[in-house]
Amino acid sequence: MKARVLVRPKAGILDPQGAVVERALPALGFQGVSDVRIGRLIELEVADPARLPEMCERLLANPLIEDYEVLLDGDSP
Amino acid sequence: MKARVLVRPKAGILDPQGAVVERALPALGFQGVSDVRIGRLIELEVADPARLPEMCERLLANPLIEDYEVLLDGDSP
Repeated sequence: MKARVLVRPKAGILDPQGAVVERALPALGFQGVSDVRIGRLIELEVADPARLPEMCERLLANPLIEDYEVLLDGDSP
Repeated sequence: MKARVLVRPKAGILDPQGAVVERALPALGFQGVSDVRIGRLIELEVADPARLPEMCERLLANPLIEDYEVLLDGDSP
């Protein structure tokens, strides 16, 4: 089954990559952008989707500083 | 308006990060995982969502090796 995992920095955790993008956009002429947060998009084919949360805890995300969301084929984000 | 940009390696482009995860999962006891691809999830608040494709072309993605998908609040992935 196709699955998608969204990994994002937890609220309150510094996101330096997002901060850089937020500063760079106005310099390129794009105004009115705020709250930029950058995370990871992991797409995979998995035989047993029930084990995805465990995979996230152990490898795909760092649960200390990141939240993850598992979407199975057909879920809305 | 809240927007979400999904950036993923183009089909056929090597994804070393995905390859590493795919090799690591069985070593941790997770079988049956394949086609792991790792991209970026960019979430932002934007005043003019019509300019998002241009932002992707110029800063958020590398159009040579990455595809991007823009989702506005309420879109399905």
